[in-house]
Amino acid sequence: MFGLGAAGAAVVGAGAVAASSLFDEQPVAHASSTSDPYPFYGRHQAGIVTPAQDRLHFVAFDVTTDKRAELVDLLQEWTAAAARLTQGKEAGSFGAVGGAPEAAPDDTGEALGLPASGLTLTIGFGPSLFDDRFGLAAKRPSALADLPKFPGEQLIPEISGGDICVQACAHDPQVAVHAIRNLARIGFGRVSVRWSQLGFGRTSSTSRAQATPRNLMGFKDGTNNLKLEDADLLRDQLWAAGQDGSAWMAGGTYMVTRKIRMMIETWDRTSLLEQEQIIGRDKGEGAPLGKKAEFDTLDFAAKGSDGRPMIAEDAHVRLAHPSFHGNAHLLRRGYNFVDGSDGLGRLDAGLFFIAYQRDPRKQFVPVQMKLAKIDPLNEYIKHVSSGLFAVPPGVRDGGDYWGRTLFE
Amino acid sequence: MFGLGAAGAAVVGAGAVAASSLFDEQPVAHASSTSDPYPFYGRHQAGIVTPAQDRLHFVAFDVTTDKRAELVDLLQEWTAAAARLTQGKEAGSFGAVGGAPEAAPDDTGEALGLPASGLTLTIGFGPSLFDDRFGLAAKRPSALADLPKFPGEQLIPEISGGDICVQACAHDPQVAVHAIRNLARIGFGRVSVRWSQLGFGRTSSTSRAQATPRNLMGFKDGTNNLKLEDADLLRDQLWAAGQDGSAWMAGGTYMVTRKIRMMIETWDRTSLLEQEQIIGRDKGEGAPLGKKAEFDTLDFAAKGSDGRPMIAEDAHVRLAHPSFHGNAHLLRRGYNFVDGSDGLGRLDAGLFFIAYQRDPRKQFVPVQMKLAKIDPLNEYIKHVSSGLFAVPPGVRDGGDYWGRTLFE
Repeated sequence: MFGLGAAGAAVVGAGAVAASSLFDEQPVAHASSTSDPYPFYGRHQAGIVTPAQDRLHFVAFDVTTDKRAELVDLLQEWTAAAARLTQGKEAGSFGAVGGAPEAAPDDTGEALGLPASGLTLTIGFGPSLFDDRFGLAAKRPSALADLPKFPGEQLIPEISGGDICVQACAHDPQVAVHAIRNLARIGFGRVSVRWSQLGFGRTSSTSRAQATPRNLMGFKDGTNNLKLEDADLLRDQLWAAGQDGSAWMAGGTYMVTRKIRMMIETWDRTSLLEQEQIIGRDKGEGAPLGKKAEFDTLDFAAKGSDGRPMIAEDAHVRLAHPSFHGNAHLLRRGYNFVDGSDGLGRLDAGLFFIAYQRDPRKQFVPVQMKLAKIDPLNEYIKHVSSGLFAVPPGVRDGGDYWGRTLFE
Repeated sequence: MFGLGAAGAAVVGAGAVAASSLFDEQPVAHASSTSDPYPFYGRHQAGIVTPAQDRLHFVAFDVTTDKRAELVDLLQEWTAAAARLTQGKEAGSFGAVGGAPEAAPDDTGEALGLPASGLTLTIGFGPSLFDDRFGLAAKRPSALADLPKFPGEQLIPEISGGDICVQACAHDPQVAVHAIRNLARIGFGRVSVRWSQLGFGRTSSTSRAQATPRNLMGFKDGTNNLKLEDADLLRDQLWAAGQDGSAWMAGGTYMVTRKIRMMIETWDRTSLLEQEQIIGRDKGEGAPLGKKAEFDTLDFAAKGSDGRPMIAEDAHVRLAHPSFHGNAHLLRRGYNFVDGSDGLGRLDAGLFFIAYQRDPRKQFVPVQMKLAKIDPLNEYIKHVSSGLFAVPPGVRDGGDYWGRTLFE
């Protein structure tokens, strides 16, 4: 069912990435099974171009200490814990088993016996971290400019923003939840959980070796997403190079999150024809309208026998397409969510959108501004949460820690 | 890490259950992989003794029509959809692909291309369905007596109760969510979603062939749970036999749900010693205190060198043990949940408890009453939602439907 275009076949083989390539711009290899670990150390953080795992636990923290040294201590402790957790170990050297019974365990225990499950932990720093508390104002990257207000958005402040975020992706939700919970435990007294979000069923592929998954509108999502095999595009459009006067961000990237509630009950009563015209692809195969296969090139000039464009002037795929935005790409790795029901007889469900890019001002913002203004899909969706984070470069083994280049 | 006692080894082999055994009291065999389907038709509904799958989407509906005939129509439509969905098919014969493009699709599409993933759908009828709307008052089973108020519970009415529930269990959350969403879609105008709950990381084994999983307190949970291999206990304590004047329930059972919020941040700051004494088992292995292995028999008389019981007088495992409740057992198949955060810097997490039994008045109620009164664990948990449902017998192939014995 999930066809892969010929161009996507077997570009990346299975098997763990060799340690020697960690600091190159090589593609991240797939773990050979969903139990295996991904390397924690590297030039870039894992969890960005890493082939998207199936489950997400995302958390945004507020920093509650006002002492810079305590924040740095925390980042060092978190880094040590993340290096262990991502390799399938317990969070601390004194785990739930053995050690001093009079002390609270250094690991909460619910992942004991579970494998690494492809866990990645990816940290980001929100604009609010660059206020006057920690002396970081001068280091705020210009690319970390506050997002504009988009037409129609209905953001809930309590589940938006945050000083620090951590994205945990894994093939087992228990492993992702365990990791976030232990970071929160370690952070006690220095950070508190501002909001958190569980997700399932990755809605984007980040590698051509992955089949394209479906979002809760039932459509394949992310067919033309930036993928780890797109070396030139990743260099130009994903990784920061200190290009905005923020040398500390070289090798990092910028993350935008949007929690997009879908009015799925309304969508489900919309005809197949209308659904496909709104999206610009057919629902079954995922092919651009007028084409046959998912990875066929979109032809925005093609017209049907009625003389109208096969892909409508306001179809979602047209409005968002890089060719209409100066070739601006995003690397997306969003997840479906269902947060129970909304008290009005409807499921509280939708897409937790996550996108990585070199500069949101040139990538996410113009694309989303166009969509927010005229996309017919807006009748069926509502943006309720927003996040923006500077994602620092990866960590090297031995004394390095998350965000060191920012603080030193 | 997850050791299985010798008694539990290889009692049930892999491989699909033979059709000829569907109406026997045979154990339900394991699907041979996590992609395979379980049979939908049978004497009992699937999803009860079926080896617990890893993911849950549970929904409670309010019936919004007051016409009995419309309710029966819906149950018939749901049964047809469930028979398809559990076998990995789309919800309706006109799926998202092909058919009339002017109509809304008979399937929402997000599970296209995904396998059955062990999906089971299990329906139950709440006490409120037996009011005067549908002429069912005289058929209300005496075992479906309203639960008493338990000390300390803080139930939220909006996420408790419901006329009808459906438990969807699968190895893939997208498949479970897809099933519930399509049942809600089919029910439009006749039912509306009252509440729904996602869960992950089953917290009980329902077969001796499964390793015991861990709850979010980090302890193995359900070691001594009723399991599908316990034929005598299942007959006596799980399946209803029309023993309470409700012949229509023969082959059915009764379900209790409790959403139990855990104060995990407080728990995480409790010493290992105290955690183990509260539970009565060691955290690493799951062995009863004073014993070595998970499945060792609990010895409530054993005393330590200080003359005090190895398993404290108020340890959770002692308070809940069948030997102190007239040998009352439960078949539990609960799930962990994380519903984001609570706005107070804490994860909103815990256990969605599901238990099946022949008569809650003799099983869940006395056990929970004792726990609610004196279990030291109450300092760390809070019951916020409650559900009680009569789970009708299974459906036979050909003209039968969910709840037919109740309505005919």
